[in-house]
Amino acid sequence: MSVDVQERNRLSAAVVGESAPDYKRKFSLPQYYYTSPELYRKEMEFLRSKLWLMAAHESQIPKNGDFKLFEIDGESIILCRDLQGDVHAFYNVCRHRGSPVCVTNEGNAKAFSCPYHSWTFMLDGTLKRPRAMDASFDPKEWNLKAAHLGNLDGLLFVCLAKGEAPSFEEFAGRIRPFISQYGLTKAKPVYVQDDLIVTNWKLPLENYRENYHISSVHQDLGRVMGAAMDHSNGESHAERMSRLGRSLPMVYDEAESLYLQQAIQFAFGKDQVSATQDGSAASSLMPTITEWSKGWTYINFNPLSHINLQDDYAIMVFFTPVSETVTKTSMVFLVNEDAVEGKDLDVKKLIDLYVVTMAEDNVVLGRHQKGIESGAYEPAPLALEEDQIVLFHDWYFNRVHGVPTA
Amino acid sequence: MSVDVQERNRLSAAVVGESAPDYKRKFSLPQYYYTSPELYRKEMEFLRSKLWLMAAHESQIPKNGDFKLFEIDGESIILCRDLQGDVHAFYNVCRHRGSPVCVTNEGNAKAFSCPYHSWTFMLDGTLKRPRAMDASFDPKEWNLKAAHLGNLDGLLFVCLAKGEAPSFEEFAGRIRPFISQYGLTKAKPVYVQDDLIVTNWKLPLENYRENYHISSVHQDLGRVMGAAMDHSNGESHAERMSRLGRSLPMVYDEAESLYLQQAIQFAFGKDQVSATQDGSAASSLMPTITEWSKGWTYINFNPLSHINLQDDYAIMVFFTPVSETVTKTSMVFLVNEDAVEGKDLDVKKLIDLYVVTMAEDNVVLGRHQKGIESGAYEPAPLALEEDQIVLFHDWYFNRVHGVPTA
Amino acid sequence: MSVDVQERNRLSAAVVGESAPDYKRKFSLPQYYYTSPELYRKEMEFLRSKLWLMAAHESQIPKNGDFKLFEIDGESIILCRDLQGDVHAFYNVCRHRGSPVCVTNEGNAKAFSCPYHSWTFMLDGTLKRPRAMDASFDPKEWNLKAAHLGNLDGLLFVCLAKGEAPSFEEFAGRIRPFISQYGLTKAKPVYVQDDLIVTNWKLPLENYRENYHISSVHQDLGRVMGAAMDHSNGESHAERMSRLGRSLPMVYDEAESLYLQQAIQFAFGKDQVSATQDGSAASSLMPTITEWSKGWTYINFNPLSHINLQDDYAIMVFFTPVSETVTKTSMVFLVNEDAVEGKDLDVKKLIDLYVVTMAEDNVVLGRHQKGIESGAYEPAPLALEEDQIVLFHDWYFNRVHGVPTA
Repeated sequence: MSVDVQERNRLSAAVVGESAPDYKRKFSLPQYYYTSPELYRKEMEFLRSKLWLMAAHESQIPKNGDFKLFEIDGESIILCRDLQGDVHAFYNVCRHRGSPVCVTNEGNAKAFSCPYHSWTFMLDGTLKRPRAMDASFDPKEWNLKAAHLGNLDGLLFVCLAKGEAPSFEEFAGRIRPFISQYGLTKAKPVYVQDDLIVTNWKLPLENYRENYHISSVHQDLGRVMGAAMDHSNGESHAERMSRLGRSLPMVYDEAESLYLQQAIQFAFGKDQVSATQDGSAASSLMPTITEWSKGWTYINFNPLSHINLQDDYAIMVFFTPVSETVTKTSMVFLVNEDAVEGKDLDVKKLIDLYVVTMAEDNVVLGRHQKGIESGAYEPAPLALEEDQIVLFHDWYFNRVHGVPTA
Repeated sequence: MSVDVQERNRLSAAVVGESAPDYKRKFSLPQYYYTSPELYRKEMEFLRSKLWLMAAHESQIPKNGDFKLFEIDGESIILCRDLQGDVHAFYNVCRHRGSPVCVTNEGNAKAFSCPYHSWTFMLDGTLKRPRAMDASFDPKEWNLKAAHLGNLDGLLFVCLAKGEAPSFEEFAGRIRPFISQYGLTKAKPVYVQDDLIVTNWKLPLENYRENYHISSVHQDLGRVMGAAMDHSNGESHAERMSRLGRSLPMVYDEAESLYLQQAIQFAFGKDQVSATQDGSAASSLMPTITEWSKGWTYINFNPLSHINLQDDYAIMVFFTPVSETVTKTSMVFLVNEDAVEGKDLDVKKLIDLYVVTMAEDNVVLGRHQKGIESGAYEPAPLALEEDQIVLFHDWYFNRVHGVPTA
Repeated sequence: MSVDVQERNRLSAAVVGESAPDYKRKFSLPQYYYTSPELYRKEMEFLRSKLWLMAAHESQIPKNGDFKLFEIDGESIILCRDLQGDVHAFYNVCRHRGSPVCVTNEGNAKAFSCPYHSWTFMLDGTLKRPRAMDASFDPKEWNLKAAHLGNLDGLLFVCLAKGEAPSFEEFAGRIRPFISQYGLTKAKPVYVQDDLIVTNWKLPLENYRENYHISSVHQDLGRVMGAAMDHSNGESHAERMSRLGRSLPMVYDEAESLYLQQAIQFAFGKDQVSATQDGSAASSLMPTITEWSKGWTYINFNPLSHINLQDDYAIMVFFTPVSETVTKTSMVFLVNEDAVEGKDLDVKKLIDLYVVTMAEDNVVLGRHQKGIESGAYEPAPLALEEDQIVLFHDWYFNRVHGVPTA
């Protein structure tokens, strides 16, 4: 690739300065923002210390002893439920020599016994006294390291800050009313999909924030969303939400905010009740939903962590950095825990729209990264429909680099 | 590999100085010239800004709307023919967000519509006004970026200089009389082969410039060329060329030259009319050839771009850097556009000698790179038959690094 | 991975100073000791210049003209036997242009003729006068470069020092009495296994030096070694060794030593005569062994080169760095040259214990490297049974970095 190495090195230094280097507002980012390993490490320091990252839903580890790994930036985090039913998040690193104590992606265990030297950690992270240690060795000082953990109606968030984490309540509080309408504590997962794509982590984020590409890339999603423009459903969406007691003022963060959160309620189109290829329901109503609202809720917890809630299913969407040019995209589909496939649940119908959409995005994004690495690439004006990218850039410079973009 | 990192870093600085560091004339190059990423980037800056690189033959995009990609050093260039029949070269980078606008290696199109956001560029590169842009947006400023393009009897050359390119006429002028004997504007491609090899780009170049390895590596080529030493064809080659009005003084550049060009007419051996395994013809005469000259023309446009012309076919030979230790070798075989397979054309016979030769070289070169990366490698005296490598080194230091080797 | 780049770079400088940076004695090493490319290069400079590395056994190249490659850190060394039967070690790099002169891993040859330009080196490394060289060219100055070579009862050691090598006698002398009990000069190889694992080279070394992991990782080896704890074989091991004239004071080097050598004689358990799954013999007695000693000899030549000798077979164990995070583990099994499969030799039985053990270690070690690359990894106290790792660390800092750890 023709990345300008000197330019890239210059940046590593410059971006700590007073301005956003080489960045023109309402334009795309310069090349090295998508390629520099040094810049990537700086971004990860921010993401690890400041963000609450959505990691899983509690229903993915329903029984005592259940565990599941969440991996980001080469880090492996164990999410597990102890014998009292409490959920924990631990770094998957034995306190003895550093071997992973858990080597399967998910399962059920009585304890984590390191496969190397059998140091054994209980499900609450406490170390059982290992044999053959010096008498002065105090096991209590060598429990598994906990990652900060937050829980919002079963949605599990971790923060990898080495010291204190930002307030979880401040992070989750404003979103809670939107989430709690759906009763996620009584949900269950029916489909999980992970894909690795060869792009910098900011490309899928930018892609997720704009509809400008939908007509080019997403035939199915475009059709479904196009239908949503027609709101002639008798009673208006606002009236219906009010009648159902579900009206909420939207959350819409500015660039100076901590997390750039959004929570917005949208209407579907005529005769449409869910985000499926034909607009019809794919599962029974979510636990605390009593009547079809003919709409859905779009939520950004932060630029990496998202959930869309329909009246019959929720989809968690994750963009997870792996390295400066590799990102993992993930989806977890949740339904009412009482839904039964073949009776009131049709998983294929449920997942099809977003599985197709994600596949289309992943192909386009891999190509996009390659194009950006050209010597001919240069930042250009964004379209009006890409204004959410501008908002992300403003937040990115404000928060990650501590420099204004105005 | 045991590359000396400190030595390599030292070079990055030193080679901009007054001499060719660590280089002894008539010896092979020091190790880091074949391994250093920093040095490679410096070389690419030179190759991109100063060379006219052979990219394709016009007959590979014969119809209006035809296009073909040429890729070098991570860069993708679109060669295309517009609706008026004019040929263009564009950087394959959407002016909006940087995605490639063309994602297939060759084909036919009415326009290039970016698969990401549908920005659409006509075949002459002009941008159709995209929707949803700010009123101040002027499409005329955001056409596809053109690469510099030159055309010599259908041979297409690009220059990736960001500003002005060197004169194409100065580049191509002295070679034109040799090329124009063959009527390439009425040629067509019959075989294309690309291979990736794990070597620095200078190794295949050096290999191409010496016959010293032929007896070891190329049994078939050695036999054909050995036969060529016997010139007892009655009339001498010089007499015949003179009689046919095809005599030309050879072009043979010195190290101070811009491009290190060569154009030389050679005789074949007794009873031999073409560069095939048995020396017999494999196709009908090239468009403007009227009688077998029993010889061929060897042309170096520059160290990366070559063409050999026989009376019945031409072979374009490309060495294209991909990264500091990966290079693409390519061949395009051209014949008279009227030749018909099974009648006056035998493609298998036509390509066999050079396909075998290239395969043999590619194997040897991959090993050679590995050997050079040994801690025991050190430059050694070149053989007399490797004098063309010395000439290349002289040019390389003069032109790429701006330092003399005397 | 979350390796701290700045910390890593800081080390490259700091470790040349007066202390062992970030290292607490009796703790595991900091992360960057297992990941830094710069540190790896520094270590390789030490390993190449100071160590005698076990490379093969002479019986692997038994006939005149036989050759075999030994590869380490991207370097390829030819071990060959010339027409007088003398063994040599050469860098596999043609003195002309640097191509490997030998491109098969083992075989028999009359000479090494470079496959590129046919420069031909005799089996003693002397260059035959190549054609087409300048008259001033003196072939005697361009023989294959020899690596330093030592031979201990057929065990071949190379030293890659560019100048003088350390004394081989000083290296091998103290170990010779242990080796010579077994008559390895009349041994032959019956099984060779090489595996690449994705770890820094120090992890398999540390693993090899401690038994703390055996109960977790090695069910079979643990059972065999557990049995060995019961020494009720009538006559004690010490008495028997004394009666057999095989008693030797153990070699046990301290951290200040050149090579950290060990040579120790151990007893097997009751009814056990060899290191096999059931403790019974798998081959006839080694050439100079006359009676089962019911014990074995454990030898570390240096941290990379090991041999374990049983009365019926020997196993050479190699840990060979490939890059900062790739290592090759190798085993060569030797038996009495007169042993015959199906008669007094059972190869499957012979190799099974160590093939299983090595496979188990390789899996654990690959995971261990990944865990160490976590941001949560930090050095921790070693177990009492890991005291040999502490000794290795002391030697490592003393010898590789020239700094004390006390």
